[in-house]
Amino acid sequence: MALSTPFLAIDLERMQANIARVAEAATARGIALRPHAKTHKTIEIGRMQVAAGAHGLTVATVGEAEVFAAAGLDDLCIAYPLWIDADKAARLSALAARGAAISVGVDSLEGVVRLVHAGLAGRVSARVEVDAGHHRSGCAPAAAGEVASAAVQAGVDVEGVFSFPGHAYAPEARERAARDEADALTRAAASLRDAGVEPMVISGGSTPSLAAALEIDSPVNELRPGVTVFGDAQQWELGSAQPEEIALTCHATVVSHAGGRLVLDAGSKVLGPDRATWASGHGRLLDHPEARVVQLSEHHAVVELPSGSRALPALGSVVRVVPNHVCIAVNMVDELVVYDRGDDREPAARWRVAARGRNA
Amino acid sequence: MALSTPFLAIDLERMQANIARVAEAATARGIALRPHAKTHKTIEIGRMQVAAGAHGLTVATVGEAEVFAAAGLDDLCIAYPLWIDADKAARLSALAARGAAISVGVDSLEGVVRLVHAGLAGRVSARVEVDAGHHRSGCAPAAAGEVASAAVQAGVDVEGVFSFPGHAYAPEARERAARDEADALTRAAASLRDAGVEPMVISGGSTPSLAAALEIDSPVNELRPGVTVFGDAQQWELGSAQPEEIALTCHATVVSHAGGRLVLDAGSKVLGPDRATWASGHGRLLDHPEARVVQLSEHHAVVELPSGSRALPALGSVVRVVPNHVCIAVNMVDELVVYDRGDDREPAARWRVAARGRNA
Repeated sequence: MALSTPFLAIDLERMQANIARVAEAATARGIALRPHAKTHKTIEIGRMQVAAGAHGLTVATVGEAEVFAAAGLDDLCIAYPLWIDADKAARLSALAARGAAISVGVDSLEGVVRLVHAGLAGRVSARVEVDAGHHRSGCAPAAAGEVASAAVQAGVDVEGVFSFPGHAYAPEARERAARDEADALTRAAASLRDAGVEPMVISGGSTPSLAAALEIDSPVNELRPGVTVFGDAQQWELGSAQPEEIALTCHATVVSHAGGRLVLDAGSKVLGPDRATWASGHGRLLDHPEARVVQLSEHHAVVELPSGSRALPALGSVVRVVPNHVCIAVNMVDELVVYDRGDDREPAARWRVAARGRNA
Repeated sequence: MALSTPFLAIDLERMQANIARVAEAATARGIALRPHAKTHKTIEIGRMQVAAGAHGLTVATVGEAEVFAAAGLDDLCIAYPLWIDADKAARLSALAARGAAISVGVDSLEGVVRLVHAGLAGRVSARVEVDAGHHRSGCAPAAAGEVASAAVQAGVDVEGVFSFPGHAYAPEARERAARDEADALTRAAASLRDAGVEPMVISGGSTPSLAAALEIDSPVNELRPGVTVFGDAQQWELGSAQPEEIALTCHATVVSHAGGRLVLDAGSKVLGPDRATWASGHGRLLDHPEARVVQLSEHHAVVELPSGSRALPALGSVVRVVPNHVCIAVNMVDELVVYDRGDDREPAARWRVAARGRNA
């Protein structure tokens, strides 16, 4: 019996090619990879990334760290300025006690104090987060030395600095964001050295800025891309993924031709509701590049094909939808259906999204 | 030990007041309620709605129907034009065999044929979906009779007609959408009668249009609001929920003051990424009505308070975020933390989001 739609499907051949391509490019530049596992939240994929040469994984939450560490993937950077309450302190201590190598983000003196009062000095290490132009979390580059120095003085091992150039998520912004990040991390590293702390790790992020970050002159010695393992419609539109590299789609059934358009049974509860202001729609169809999801509800995607294109796919036919933002889509589902190749009829495996919903 | 943020919390007193208020208003008008359970996906809340007088529940998928039926809440309308494949046919048959009263949506002759070929005539009943102006699924009102008649001739029990006036989700659109829906359902019911099918159920939807739908002259004899049980920032901004009625918030910790703004540990993976074009931000703070979430990432909400407002909430303090679209937020989490009253320190319960992720 065919699987009932909607479900998220991986094209394993493409995914493995994506992992290998980025690993080779980073190795050629002498840059370490620490892929962000928030994108896939899946043990099997984390293992493939490490097997391809990744120096550990990046995660966003203590809960994600617990899931990957329990599977033996325990060299982990929590790239987030955690506010360590009693619960998170106990859980981080437990991870350290079982031998996991954990670093956490800090972007303030108060964050350092929290880490130390929680008894975590010497148990987890720290990285100072700096703002490279995305204006989210992260201290100013020039302030990084003060934060790092306070941590070191309190007995915390400071590995270095990191940033996330999220402003790369806009048309024509990828190279500029990579340069902004290189500049911010250069200044942050100097700030640490001025404060007497040698930054061993100088870590950059983001899939859109990845290609530029691998090309430009920069002190960055680690990169943490997430989306690159799958690609998505955002990367397609920004030019940081080609359609033939997209390795995750939502299989969806045409349930209605109401209004002369396609209505699919995949909505925002499986694709994710993300739509950047610059996106051309709420998602795209892998096999109909000219189509756009023009309206998205929880269980409906309304798709328009340009006038003059061939007839609408038939009622009951299955199409492959490319989500705008794959990290959100994956976090919607409990499992991923794996095909060895995109056009296979039978799945090769089902993988559990083991860290789904681990927000805390 | 305090719960680690972020998590979704229910104010039970407010939620029960929301359930009672809508039940009383519908009863006073002689209109049946069939609340949409996609919003809460939670057995405990479905039971409270039925105890308050709801004539069964509405769901969006076969998977949701299975979850509620297994808990004995088995008078269910699947308000969706299902395309019934072998898997869904088997599961609907199983629900019918255990005595569940299931109706499903149809909006095309092909959908009727599918239902009949799947052997479901006489086992599940049907409702014809019509487009009331949202332009998603649903046939034209004048075409409803043809679909209904075909179903009846094939032995399917047709309960009546339904619509979802989703175009109520816009400023100043609520009353117009309710009138559009009343008009479309009037025409659809006439179309059924012309085709010799008496529509016993004439069912309308949507929380924004609810107040108007209860006021205007209309043939509607059933309503299916979903969000009204909790309220959210969208309803707050549309005027269909008052802030003091909002019964679900995300408890989030201030993790950074970077850039002189609040950075919270609640991002799009717990709040949901929904942002309508007319929304004033990515979410709001229940206790700071002037604040707006101006930037949202997967694990960060950046909040701006207007200049001149009191000092920023301290690092480490917990604030209550109102998600833009609560149906998406609830579907992100595995459980809801329940407080008897919003200002209680200790939770009274935790409820499992039993139908989370049941998209198929």
